[in-house]
Amino acid sequence: MVKALILIADGTEEMEFTITYDTLVRAGVQCTSAFVPDSATPPPVPSSAALLDTTPESKTTPTLVECSRGVKILPDTTLDPLKAGPDIYDLLVIPGGLKGAQTIAGSSPVQHLIRAYHEYPERRLIGMICAGSLAALQASLKRQPLTSHPSVKAQLEDKFEYKEDSVVVSDRLVTSRGPGTAFPFALTLVELLFGAEKRDEVRGPMVFPVGTPW
Amino acid sequence: MVKALILIADGTEEMEFTITYDTLVRAGVQCTSAFVPDSATPPPVPSSAALLDTTPESKTTPTLVECSRGVKILPDTTLDPLKAGPDIYDLLVIPGGLKGAQTIAGSSPVQHLIRAYHEYPERRLIGMICAGSLAALQASLKRQPLTSHPSVKAQLEDKFEYKEDSVVVSDRLVTSRGPGTAFPFALTLVELLFGAEKRDEVRGPMVFPVGTPW
Repeated sequence: MVKALILIADGTEEMEFTITYDTLVRAGVQCTSAFVPDSATPPPVPSSAALLDTTPESKTTPTLVECSRGVKILPDTTLDPLKAGPDIYDLLVIPGGLKGAQTIAGSSPVQHLIRAYHEYPERRLIGMICAGSLAALQASLKRQPLTSHPSVKAQLEDKFEYKEDSVVVSDRLVTSRGPGTAFPFALTLVELLFGAEKRDEVRGPMVFPVGTPW
Repeated sequence: MVKALILIADGTEEMEFTITYDTLVRAGVQCTSAFVPDSATPPPVPSSAALLDTTPESKTTPTLVECSRGVKILPDTTLDPLKAGPDIYDLLVIPGGLKGAQTIAGSSPVQHLIRAYHEYPERRLIGMICAGSLAALQASLKRQPLTSHPSVKAQLEDKFEYKEDSVVVSDRLVTSRGPGTAFPFALTLVELLFGAEKRDEVRGPMVFPVGTPW
């Protein structure tokens, strides 16, 4: 079964998080959302039971997240870098929302994970949307095509081949712009994982208006 | 301040809920999400403090909701019909997701609230999206133009002037079709509450792709 790890922090954009999670589930992906604490917050002390538990889906100390516009989401688990790697998941997703993206992109364990997904021998995908693209910079990914929310373009355009397209696919790195591009972002991830037919199968029952350009 | 009450139940479609809540917050609406228990579940016994508290925003016994594709959302409060009327809120929203919509539409207090919003002397709005439109039927609203997710059309087309438009505005009742129409649904509510200029102001930073038809 294809597995996705979707990161979330206080201040994550709830539409970008939810549209990606929900669309991937509709495609049959097993999604796990993982809370990334602010680096100012000490990490939870794992219980002895958690230390013994080596299953990837173990649910350790989930923390309620307050998203950017006040929706409160309970993540499936708290990020454990030892159970979050490209040996377990096929896809790593970093949503936007400036405050949440800064927390996620500023996390040293997340930066290591991004590089691990980027360099893994088998092909893995990394999705970043909106201010989430700041994580490509913080993880020191090589210069390649990328987009982001316009509000963080100035931080990215020197280090990457900055594009204004709604979704930019650069080998393993898939980037996008904001809540308004979250559906084409998520559907592009579905297509890259399963092909165009599955994308159409997921898209149909969502009932997009006639003339929607994705 | 304009206030919206957005209902949520186990099985609510998380994209429809979140897109509406977030978009309204971006427009400056004070949003309150209220949990509607399944009628099979006994209502929580209010504490004496809750009985003394008459503020509309009082947070009584919020219950974690498991949405249709597994996202877990903590509502702002549990529905208290005495603090949910058109004397307090300007807008009542009922999202889809078949199981959640059936719970919400089947709730007798919700049916009374819908009629109260429909008939209130001052103009109030009622938004229903996807299977949420079943609530218009259950509340016995008068025959008028309406749309819904195609999967529940057969239950609605005899009692309403059924339309296939992405968003249908019938005086106070605003209906829509599915996750793919949730953005135009939410932006239509913003426009009805505040005008076209505010709609454009909210829409811009969302960065919809060129050619998006809303």
